[in-house]
Amino acid sequence: MKKAEIIDQIKKKASFLCVGLDTDLQKIPSHLLSEPDPVFAFNKEIIDHTRDYCVSYKLNTAFYEYLGVKGIESMMKTIDYISDEHFVIADAKRGDIGNTSSMYAKAFFETINADAITLSPYMGRDSIGPFLHFKDKWAIVLALTSNEGADDFQFSSITENASQTRALYEQVLEKVSSWGSAENTMFVVGATKGSYFEKIRKIVPKHFLLVPGIGAQGGDLGELCRYGLNEEIGLLVNSSRAIIYSGHGHDFGVQAGKAAKEVQEAMKRELSSRNLI
Amino acid sequence: MKKAEIIDQIKKKASFLCVGLDTDLQKIPSHLLSEPDPVFAFNKEIIDHTRDYCVSYKLNTAFYEYLGVKGIESMMKTIDYISDEHFVIADAKRGDIGNTSSMYAKAFFETINADAITLSPYMGRDSIGPFLHFKDKWAIVLALTSNEGADDFQFSSITENASQTRALYEQVLEKVSSWGSAENTMFVVGATKGSYFEKIRKIVPKHFLLVPGIGAQGGDLGELCRYGLNEEIGLLVNSSRAIIYSGHGHDFGVQAGKAAKEVQEAMKRELSSRNLI
Repeated sequence: MKKAEIIDQIKKKASFLCVGLDTDLQKIPSHLLSEPDPVFAFNKEIIDHTRDYCVSYKLNTAFYEYLGVKGIESMMKTIDYISDEHFVIADAKRGDIGNTSSMYAKAFFETINADAITLSPYMGRDSIGPFLHFKDKWAIVLALTSNEGADDFQFSSITENASQTRALYEQVLEKVSSWGSAENTMFVVGATKGSYFEKIRKIVPKHFLLVPGIGAQGGDLGELCRYGLNEEIGLLVNSSRAIIYSGHGHDFGVQAGKAAKEVQEAMKRELSSRNLI
Repeated sequence: MKKAEIIDQIKKKASFLCVGLDTDLQKIPSHLLSEPDPVFAFNKEIIDHTRDYCVSYKLNTAFYEYLGVKGIESMMKTIDYISDEHFVIADAKRGDIGNTSSMYAKAFFETINADAITLSPYMGRDSIGPFLHFKDKWAIVLALTSNEGADDFQFSSITENASQTRALYEQVLEKVSSWGSAENTMFVVGATKGSYFEKIRKIVPKHFLLVPGIGAQGGDLGELCRYGLNEEIGLLVNSSRAIIYSGHGHDFGVQAGKAAKEVQEAMKRELSSRNLI
């Protein structure tokens, strides 16, 4: 999917919502457990009720891998079911030496047919490079994450020369953005760190940022928009648990749709007030 | 698998070799392609001929994920086929927020039944912690890798206080080693950086190190042993392509066995000369 198409979809729907399909057998309504593929049955219903309010779906691969072969089947069926108008992210956080990253790129862009994959930057350029050579596919690289452990290394103070230090996540943004372009690279930036967006936008003014952390992980949409939006919108905001588990009965799809619509309406207000739609 | 059992196996076999099953359909002998599961057929033959010369097998998950559902089946059949005496590593380089890392831990330690998984440290403590709570299972965390891109971030100079700086990989070794113990945590350290082992052993004197990079990625066994071995041996050295693709015909298993035996004999000499066996 090209950047222009993502922006078109956002404008058309007045939404930059990504719905996270972190589908957990322990949490889905019990009536689905008798289905031949409960995970797919759940995802299908969620997609049917949320598709008009979001522009993207993100599949957290851990939840599918946990179920072994059957989980991978459910993941692939889900991706097949999502329309071509939605941007499909495999939230896989991979990253390995060059020849292995090439295999992951083929796994996620060809076999699994996602539009984008999340990656860890720790192994450097040759771990990211292979993902940048696929037409209309995207590398979404971890920069600043929303979890507690983000403090352990992402804020480590890097000495660049005698007069300047900066955080590791800033070095990641600067280096990784130079390897590709705003047409094939995005960054994961945690919404619980709203105040950092100003700094981040100075380093990557044009890149799309994937923001987890609206909902279960906290994070304020208004503050995020104030500092994170750019002239091409430039944000995809993910919500997983707060949408997909908003209902627990037979009407869970309807409830998820309502929750997604609420977020979409808040997004519409943010976009309208800035004349972005 | 407990640390004592790993050490017992190493002493019994006079080998600290890990054979990497980076099994690629493009590279396996063509006569296997007519088998119902060519990847498993290849792995089975490699295991049959190398099992006496190695103490561990490492499965690079990228190569299996590339093949979709069928690849996951081949991976799980391979792990089932490996004896309980061998230490099975899922080379997956995962790492995510706490609840997702818990799912990965269950995926790899319960569903897939590996003894260990490789992890990226970028997301910090809560991304590693969930893997440390499984009895006799191991987190193997990336510290210093053997690829070109290792220079991009792993050597970034971190200011710890006014008088001291050190490389990011050193900070990773120190912090991560404090989260678990030498009974449940290992580190990935690239063998192409032999001269760094002395420094690394000062930070983690007791931890096992998983060393990729003997073979296709270069790296010298003698230098590695000189600086990397500790009194409990403390090294697992991986070789993938140089062993599994040493033959290309019907006798590929025999050729792989020969290649593994050669490495084992070199390891035996290193261990004997230091009275470690």
